[in-house]
Amino acid sequence: MIYLSGFHAIEERIKSGRACGPLLVAKAGPRARELSDLAAEKKIRIDRVGTADLDRLAPDHRGVVLEVDEPSAGADITLEEFLAGLGDRKEALAVVLDEITDPHNYGAILRSCDQFGVDIVITRNRRIAKHAEVISKTSAGASAWVPSAETANLPRAVEDLKQAGFWIYGADMGGESSWDKDLKGRTALIFGGEGTGISRLLRENCDALISIPSLGRIDSLNVSVAAGILLYEVTRQKKKKK
Amino acid sequence: MIYLSGFHAIEERIKSGRACGPLLVAKAGPRARELSDLAAEKKIRIDRVGTADLDRLAPDHRGVVLEVDEPSAGADITLEEFLAGLGDRKEALAVVLDEITDPHNYGAILRSCDQFGVDIVITRNRRIAKHAEVISKTSAGASAWVPSAETANLPRAVEDLKQAGFWIYGADMGGESSWDKDLKGRTALIFGGEGTGISRLLRENCDALISIPSLGRIDSLNVSVAAGILLYEVTRQKKKKK
Repeated sequence: MIYLSGFHAIEERIKSGRACGPLLVAKAGPRARELSDLAAEKKIRIDRVGTADLDRLAPDHRGVVLEVDEPSAGADITLEEFLAGLGDRKEALAVVLDEITDPHNYGAILRSCDQFGVDIVITRNRRIAKHAEVISKTSAGASAWVPSAETANLPRAVEDLKQAGFWIYGADMGGESSWDKDLKGRTALIFGGEGTGISRLLRENCDALISIPSLGRIDSLNVSVAAGILLYEVTRQKKKKK
Repeated sequence: MIYLSGFHAIEERIKSGRACGPLLVAKAGPRARELSDLAAEKKIRIDRVGTADLDRLAPDHRGVVLEVDEPSAGADITLEEFLAGLGDRKEALAVVLDEITDPHNYGAILRSCDQFGVDIVITRNRRIAKHAEVISKTSAGASAWVPSAETANLPRAVEDLKQAGFWIYGADMGGESSWDKDLKGRTALIFGGEGTGISRLLRENCDALISIPSLGRIDSLNVSVAAGILLYEVTRQKKKKK
């Protein structure tokens, strides 16, 4: 059982139509009323509770908490289902997260994945799932929307993407400049953990390494910022006319 | 007095040559040794202390802490000094932060400012200064490098930038697409707080509002990710040949 406490996360989860509830309401306020109205409309049970109850369940609550009964951090899909559904689409964008274990970074990346319409996020699962609340909140609810696949074998998943015609790009400081690289078509971006980078086996499977040109003194961007920038660059190339 | 505990932040602060120290070392380890060597080389005092001492000063330390004796969150400069030093440079990049009060977002934005060689960051100061440790750590030390000016009067600062030939762009969801906008020359980007956005008076002073095109369902990116993307876009336009 997890307890969502961010207003945005609660709203997005209710709107997603996936099973959830009850909505636990301790304090009256405009946002609490809005969420209660939304829950009522979606036929989700609403329970009045004491503030002390919420303090215990979700210490950072702001008067409303949504109970959700599964530990998954994303909108589940398997890689096989995703690839089967691709048909003859020429453009597709997949994101592979290798050892991104910080839930705040993970949530911020999901939020960017939503913004840029990423088709699938693929992760090695276990270490992430237990932080579902933080992720849902940091992602502003995007974790309820972004199609995510979990696998114990990332190199195998990357191999499957390749077979399906994806070009595999690893984000790496030593790579080619992102704005000089053609990133159109079926594209997969791999991000590694801060400090550790992409693991050796996955690196060797990349078609190319790409980097964000730096004019600075510090050697790297925050990984969620770097991910946001590269997703932007892919989207820009695909959408921009000239 | 503040206590830096991130390895990266300590390293960058020592390298910056600005007054600091002593370096408090509780645990031996490769990173602690590196930092001790660097401190010795820069003639910074090194004190051996107990782990309990560090626990008290900086609860999240990893065996080494650097004492720094001023509360400033940045490499101080005034806007006047900055403008006076611009000479006839055609290209310059200023960042104005309006109500970015979360120290993690602030630190991540400084890190991006370093990456993209931002010339000056201008903030309304007070609420930020007390979080200097978090900012230094989140920025991976960039707060020691990035030239920052603090002012009580942001609209006035924006006016001064305009007088100096800067084009003022506000980051706003309702703005024009960032990749369709010419962002070269002397450019100032204004970012507002998450939720609140840019305050009315500053908005009215913008030459244009720009946004990052969204394909998603959630209505905004994390502000530090959005800042990173727009700084990238400005830099891309300035550096890219074609």
